[in-house]
Amino acid sequence: MNGGNDRLAGLRSRLRGIGYGGDYNPEQWGTDVHVEDMKLMREAGVDLVTLGIFGWARSEPAPGAYDFTWLDPHMDRLAEAGVAVSLATMTASPPPWLSRLHPEILPVMEDGTRLHPGSRQHWCPSSPVFRGQAVRLVTELADRYGHHPALALWHIGNEYGCHLSRHCHCGVSTEAFRTWLRARYGTIDALNDAWSTDFWSQRYASFDEIRTPRTAPSFRNPTQQLDYADFSSDELLACYQAEREILGRMTPEVPVTTNFVPVAKALDLFKWAGSMDIVSYDSYPDPHDPDSFHRTAFSYDVMRGLKDGRPWLLLEQAPSAVNWRAVNGRKPPGRMRLDTWQAVAHGADAALFFQWRQSRGGAEKYHSAMVPHGGRDTRIFREVAELGAELGAADDLLGSVPLRADAALLLDWRSWWALELDAHPSAKVTMLDAALAHHRPLYEASVACDVVSVGSDFTAYKLLLIPNLYAVSEETAARIRRYVDGGGTVLMSYFSGITDEHDRVHLGGYPAPFRTLLGLTVEEFAPRADGRWEEIIRVEGAEVVRRLGSGGGPAVTRHAYGRGTAWYVGTDLPAPDMRSLMDRVRAETGVRPTLPNLAPGTQARTRVTADGTRIHVVLPLSPEGVDAETGGVEILRTEG
Amino acid sequence: MNGGNDRLAGLRSRLRGIGYGGDYNPEQWGTDVHVEDMKLMREAGVDLVTLGIFGWARSEPAPGAYDFTWLDPHMDRLAEAGVAVSLATMTASPPPWLSRLHPEILPVMEDGTRLHPGSRQHWCPSSPVFRGQAVRLVTELADRYGHHPALALWHIGNEYGCHLSRHCHCGVSTEAFRTWLRARYGTIDALNDAWSTDFWSQRYASFDEIRTPRTAPSFRNPTQQLDYADFSSDELLACYQAEREILGRMTPEVPVTTNFVPVAKALDLFKWAGSMDIVSYDSYPDPHDPDSFHRTAFSYDVMRGLKDGRPWLLLEQAPSAVNWRAVNGRKPPGRMRLDTWQAVAHGADAALFFQWRQSRGGAEKYHSAMVPHGGRDTRIFREVAELGAELGAADDLLGSVPLRADAALLLDWRSWWALELDAHPSAKVTMLDAALAHHRPLYEASVACDVVSVGSDFTAYKLLLIPNLYAVSEETAARIRRYVDGGGTVLMSYFSGITDEHDRVHLGGYPAPFRTLLGLTVEEFAPRADGRWEEIIRVEGAEVVRRLGSGGGPAVTRHAYGRGTAWYVGTDLPAPDMRSLMDRVRAETGVRPTLPNLAPGTQARTRVTADGTRIHVVLPLSPEGVDAETGGVEILRTEG
Amino acid sequence: MNGGNDRLAGLRSRLRGIGYGGDYNPEQWGTDVHVEDMKLMREAGVDLVTLGIFGWARSEPAPGAYDFTWLDPHMDRLAEAGVAVSLATMTASPPPWLSRLHPEILPVMEDGTRLHPGSRQHWCPSSPVFRGQAVRLVTELADRYGHHPALALWHIGNEYGCHLSRHCHCGVSTEAFRTWLRARYGTIDALNDAWSTDFWSQRYASFDEIRTPRTAPSFRNPTQQLDYADFSSDELLACYQAEREILGRMTPEVPVTTNFVPVAKALDLFKWAGSMDIVSYDSYPDPHDPDSFHRTAFSYDVMRGLKDGRPWLLLEQAPSAVNWRAVNGRKPPGRMRLDTWQAVAHGADAALFFQWRQSRGGAEKYHSAMVPHGGRDTRIFREVAELGAELGAADDLLGSVPLRADAALLLDWRSWWALELDAHPSAKVTMLDAALAHHRPLYEASVACDVVSVGSDFTAYKLLLIPNLYAVSEETAARIRRYVDGGGTVLMSYFSGITDEHDRVHLGGYPAPFRTLLGLTVEEFAPRADGRWEEIIRVEGAEVVRRLGSGGGPAVTRHAYGRGTAWYVGTDLPAPDMRSLMDRVRAETGVRPTLPNLAPGTQARTRVTADGTRIHVVLPLSPEGVDAETGGVEILRTEG
Repeated sequence: MNGGNDRLAGLRSRLRGIGYGGDYNPEQWGTDVHVEDMKLMREAGVDLVTLGIFGWARSEPAPGAYDFTWLDPHMDRLAEAGVAVSLATMTASPPPWLSRLHPEILPVMEDGTRLHPGSRQHWCPSSPVFRGQAVRLVTELADRYGHHPALALWHIGNEYGCHLSRHCHCGVSTEAFRTWLRARYGTIDALNDAWSTDFWSQRYASFDEIRTPRTAPSFRNPTQQLDYADFSSDELLACYQAEREILGRMTPEVPVTTNFVPVAKALDLFKWAGSMDIVSYDSYPDPHDPDSFHRTAFSYDVMRGLKDGRPWLLLEQAPSAVNWRAVNGRKPPGRMRLDTWQAVAHGADAALFFQWRQSRGGAEKYHSAMVPHGGRDTRIFREVAELGAELGAADDLLGSVPLRADAALLLDWRSWWALELDAHPSAKVTMLDAALAHHRPLYEASVACDVVSVGSDFTAYKLLLIPNLYAVSEETAARIRRYVDGGGTVLMSYFSGITDEHDRVHLGGYPAPFRTLLGLTVEEFAPRADGRWEEIIRVEGAEVVRRLGSGGGPAVTRHAYGRGTAWYVGTDLPAPDMRSLMDRVRAETGVRPTLPNLAPGTQARTRVTADGTRIHVVLPLSPEGVDAETGGVEILRTEG
Repeated sequence: MNGGNDRLAGLRSRLRGIGYGGDYNPEQWGTDVHVEDMKLMREAGVDLVTLGIFGWARSEPAPGAYDFTWLDPHMDRLAEAGVAVSLATMTASPPPWLSRLHPEILPVMEDGTRLHPGSRQHWCPSSPVFRGQAVRLVTELADRYGHHPALALWHIGNEYGCHLSRHCHCGVSTEAFRTWLRARYGTIDALNDAWSTDFWSQRYASFDEIRTPRTAPSFRNPTQQLDYADFSSDELLACYQAEREILGRMTPEVPVTTNFVPVAKALDLFKWAGSMDIVSYDSYPDPHDPDSFHRTAFSYDVMRGLKDGRPWLLLEQAPSAVNWRAVNGRKPPGRMRLDTWQAVAHGADAALFFQWRQSRGGAEKYHSAMVPHGGRDTRIFREVAELGAELGAADDLLGSVPLRADAALLLDWRSWWALELDAHPSAKVTMLDAALAHHRPLYEASVACDVVSVGSDFTAYKLLLIPNLYAVSEETAARIRRYVDGGGTVLMSYFSGITDEHDRVHLGGYPAPFRTLLGLTVEEFAPRADGRWEEIIRVEGAEVVRRLGSGGGPAVTRHAYGRGTAWYVGTDLPAPDMRSLMDRVRAETGVRPTLPNLAPGTQARTRVTADGTRIHVVLPLSPEGVDAETGGVEILRTEG
Repeated sequence: MNGGNDRLAGLRSRLRGIGYGGDYNPEQWGTDVHVEDMKLMREAGVDLVTLGIFGWARSEPAPGAYDFTWLDPHMDRLAEAGVAVSLATMTASPPPWLSRLHPEILPVMEDGTRLHPGSRQHWCPSSPVFRGQAVRLVTELADRYGHHPALALWHIGNEYGCHLSRHCHCGVSTEAFRTWLRARYGTIDALNDAWSTDFWSQRYASFDEIRTPRTAPSFRNPTQQLDYADFSSDELLACYQAEREILGRMTPEVPVTTNFVPVAKALDLFKWAGSMDIVSYDSYPDPHDPDSFHRTAFSYDVMRGLKDGRPWLLLEQAPSAVNWRAVNGRKPPGRMRLDTWQAVAHGADAALFFQWRQSRGGAEKYHSAMVPHGGRDTRIFREVAELGAELGAADDLLGSVPLRADAALLLDWRSWWALELDAHPSAKVTMLDAALAHHRPLYEASVACDVVSVGSDFTAYKLLLIPNLYAVSEETAARIRRYVDGGGTVLMSYFSGITDEHDRVHLGGYPAPFRTLLGLTVEEFAPRADGRWEEIIRVEGAEVVRRLGSGGGPAVTRHAYGRGTAWYVGTDLPAPDMRSLMDRVRAETGVRPTLPNLAPGTQARTRVTADGTRIHVVLPLSPEGVDAETGGVEILRTEG
């Protein structure tokens, strides 16, 4: 786990500026194309490619019959061309023979449907057969390419948790779930207590009686669901770690990553990040949805937060349209530049695309690529080449790091999973919406916001946003109280502090662990017919800052606690009200933009070089009407 | 089946006034809480609790290892406190070991999906394994508690037919369906005739060829579907009866009930009621939906009708929000009082809640309870205590019975099932909507309406409403004709009298069994594009009272028949038109409110005491803007 | 395959005029009804009935125990009454014993759900068991009735591909799919190439590894899906052909047909038509949807096109409402006449109904019939009898053929299947919508339009419409280019010529095979957020006729190519714009109505008798406000 910084530096040493390139899948093409690829990569300024993602079927065409002769020339040619390779372990998509020999690796859904091959990721995360085959392949790869001059990074698997197979309910998974629960709870009595099994007569006599949460006549036990989400994340992580263990042993100097998808609820990313040398991310904002620009900014802040502010890699984006939405809009001229600089502004050290050359066939042939079906003489390739030149020239970005923010937003996966379980006061309370509602007023004020976990050191921040921290352990609650007591400011929102880590209500008035902190009691949840959340709040020391309509009950409160301040928002405030509230909170805490006097509608994110120079990336707040030439992007440099 | 009145009287002798309390699930809590429970029950005026609903896993932690030591102290403590116990037979939710040992009890859906444990009611209604286990448990319970002083009522199972497991298509169910069909039809030829199997080449050579209606390439045989609905209701009833048989033998003096859910299409409630000493009901109007107040009134009229006007028990309601809707509104102050008195007004002799104390964990922890998570010092508990005091003081209600109404509405489950089968002229014709459209104008005029079955004695009523009696046997049709011939008035609506009890069309012009009664023929069904039902009617003696638009065909007709009158409504009239039609029909038949000169927007329902005093419960017609203090409820008493 | 014309003539010799009648299912009724049937058929002018569609269970009540004694009297009685019989082979709906003895014939859906009996068509199209049973039954039928005087036509199966069972994923189907692929591709390498299996690591080592496209974690291989659609159509066709082979051998003089459903995407109708002596069709426009009248006209043009302009039979329509929509509107007076003459106008030589007598029970009892539940004294029967008299009197129609049109529309099933695969730029581009958008402006201008396949001779036409010919082989593209080069005019629309017959992109700029023809390159697809299709077009010789908004890119272009002209429409034009574009194209090409000076809102379709007389059927363009007496239909005759 150590050495992440060193390993990132190692990767940086292979790049010209911000890393630039894409997924390179040469197995889909013939030699003529391969030759042209090298020429066009040079033209486009490519210095980093992801190679071999879908290479398993080529590399092991029959069980154990490894054959990398198809791959060797590409590695050599890329090395020669000075293009660093992020080499995939190829394990995301097994060849047809594997599920034919071992149909038991095919995942089973909660209703009993077995998923079949024909797309990808058709493997049970707990399958020892699959893991064994993967480990053997990775060993072969590390043996053959571990010291190849092209190799700069290992890319394990691909987009873990992206498809339906993120969960499995087969017999093997059921047994693995029991093992996971034994490790977590020790005794069946401890599990019965945590799961509240006296309700609905669910008390277990032994771990062997437990099953994964399959389709049932009515609502399933919430803690069973919650632990199953946690287990599922851990099983995928174990697949990752099994490969990482091989690579760490055989090629200790080569950094390891895998690419996360936006923003994967299925994976506890803070837990995963601990096993990664560098965090990587795939970003696919919908060009038809202007709000997705802000959502993307938030997701980049999450990526940066996974390693406590360190830079990360954008391993996939699309130069224009994708193929998997119902209607796939293209990115107009300038938008690709804007999107790329947005990533760099938020901490990306590389900007890669899926994929280098647009496929002629298969499920993603309408996913745009750096080299379109139309070839070199296209708008897209021209913009790709211009952007490559620009990023390659920005060599002072290489080695710079994002400036630490004054504000942070607390995100916790287990609480997220618990928040979105069924049988709640309102199904319309969802984690990402709440997080974005809190993040947006900072974003619109050009104020950076870090994302932290419950285990982070909050004291580095002037302001801590806590949207819907629904399930919280007493220990975490105490850490938050101590932070405020020591002088910090929190802005906490509704339906926080309601249950513990096992989704059992903290008794004694909502939100019991935060009542003294906030100076109030929530008497009742009162979601309205239109879904808007409201609460009946009884203040016990807090000042009422805002009410639910004129004459209504408290909606926003402020409470001095120790040397700090605790704000509480008891309803999902309309965006303008959230903005003015945040303005006041920022004024009190001194949370300000890193670059003052910006033009309206713009924002800046700031990186710092080793010599203290500040590099400000100025961007529009929204991509609507993007400037075709510049993407609305401007780079400023100031002394530190 | 006899002795129902005596047994109700027996229960009444244990209560102070209207029975008051809730589901008591002490196994979820520790001793400190148990002690506080007794104190708070006294404070809240509780005199009746339902105990042990989810007690199976505690009471039989391993197969055959019965252990009631957890329950004994609660029974004793409640007896001591003077709280009567409705003791659950605990069979709704089996412990984990049962489905582990016998996975064959898990229900199979029509598409082959097997339902799993993890929630509740995960048992095939036809399973001899499940029934055998249930009967053994009930025998143990009756043996241990049959003569306990706390015992006042047996509560068999729980909310039969509420969840997905109301139907099962496993092999055992398939064989049971064949057995049921053999009993019903005797010969396979009789079944072929009833099921019209010559259509689509479905003629069976033997009962062994028949299956339950599983997912099929196209529309399934309608009579197969209809008989399967009937069979499914009977199989659940057989589960109930297997337990009842034990209890009736071992504790003949103790009344037996089970709690119905609103308004269970899955169960033929008139058939079920024959096996119950007292009818019980769970009521959960949506506080966000003002119309649900009227729907609830109608469902209470159904409950009263199941035992020919006798009082019934409200065994579950929520003091505020429930947890199982997408958005769960709370009940504002006053609403709980209003809802409770509405039940009493319509014949309830008890008003219990689910549940006494709000669960800390599990699937229903956000279902409000008499004692909220916040404890005693909450608005909800204060209102609960006030209501308990009020109901306990209303001792003349104890022993009173609802006044018989002058109007009745005919409801038939088999016709309901048939009406809502697929491949009909319009999928928008549904039974409850039709029933409510007929019930509403009486409700709004403060006129009581009983609900009767096809086997009831209609002559007690001045007016009989027959909404959408789609499937009707020749015998029932003759009873209706005789009722009118003898001087009765019917108001029948569209798509009635179309098929017989096997869903075969009565030939000879629609509606063949009622053409002479109504003095008309329906030539064609003509549902409009917007779903509004219309018919092409040819009058043959009837007077046209209203037309489909100006110059349109007949929409409402009136026909003298013998000494009575038959009205026909050939379209789903808008509510105001239905209201003015009903006003005219009421004027002709002398159907009037029991309490004249009510304020606009209010209604009254009347009960009569043994000495003839009339107790009028005056309520608003709608709960919107409910009075926080009184709930808008007023109790008046007049001489009989 | 030869002799189709002779066989049609043979059938015609049995009819009085346009064939008239319906499905006759006497097994549902008793002798009294059978006697009345003959009387009413005479009264209604019936001269052709379809007999025995659902007769399997009666004819083979136990395995191999054939018994046609129930059918004999009907055949005899119909022969005596001069009613020709289209005798069904009865194989659409097997009796219950078959799937009980052989549950393996039950189809399996992509998620593993097995379809059950209880409706109809519950058989796997690849099942040798089912095919064997069907062939034995057909042999018996041909043996018994092949020379019966009533027999005029064989009706194989029924509505192939109409229900869920059009696809099957069972083990037998999987093996059959492999066999089909072996025959198509020869080697696994050829398949890997065609299916682009290097993408997502799907490369197969042998055909035995291939499965049907079952439910998978993500998008399935598009060419696998495409070939599976083709395979599924072929498997149903093989069922048809197995029966046809028997009949062709045993009764070579009797024509053979089966009835298609509107417009079956599941069957490659051009391929099927090659195995049919006469094309037949079932037509069910929604009376509530006025647009369905135009859609019906288009589907009739497809039927006529399947046999290069020859007449076809309307084997099913409804006199009024059907039963299988959510809301089933009735046909008002006059509408049945209008619908029937519309069919004749577009080439129908018979107009039959489903069904003769409305069923008393079963799934289709609310499907209207020639003899309604109400019997003879009904509006429907009166209109049926009037129409029968009219059609029987129109004896010069017998032997007439539809006039060949000047314009044709190109329709290709494989391209259709490919067009509607997932993971495309927009899910809103669908084949029938595109075809109708091109067909409509001709329809509204009273201009006939033939429908042709990619293998047709285009030179017979002045104008060829090519809507969304997405997947096109190089060979077909060359045929289209040659047609224009030789003087033809094409109007091609967006997203055409994108992929080859294996759904692999034609590289080199969209649409590569048509770039020189059209004089342009499509640089990018740019579907808008609202779903409207747009493209970024670079003209390379073409004239820009219309732009995307003012100042926008090219939307409609025109390009001279050889001696002809190629139009291109790069967006889904609003209907009025499509109309004015088509007016201009028609003016240039001289495509005109066959009958000039029609009243506004009317259209004419023209048939020609052997002596050259032109029979013009004049109809309204829309059925809205249909004339109750005439249906708005007028028949004119002019010299040829």
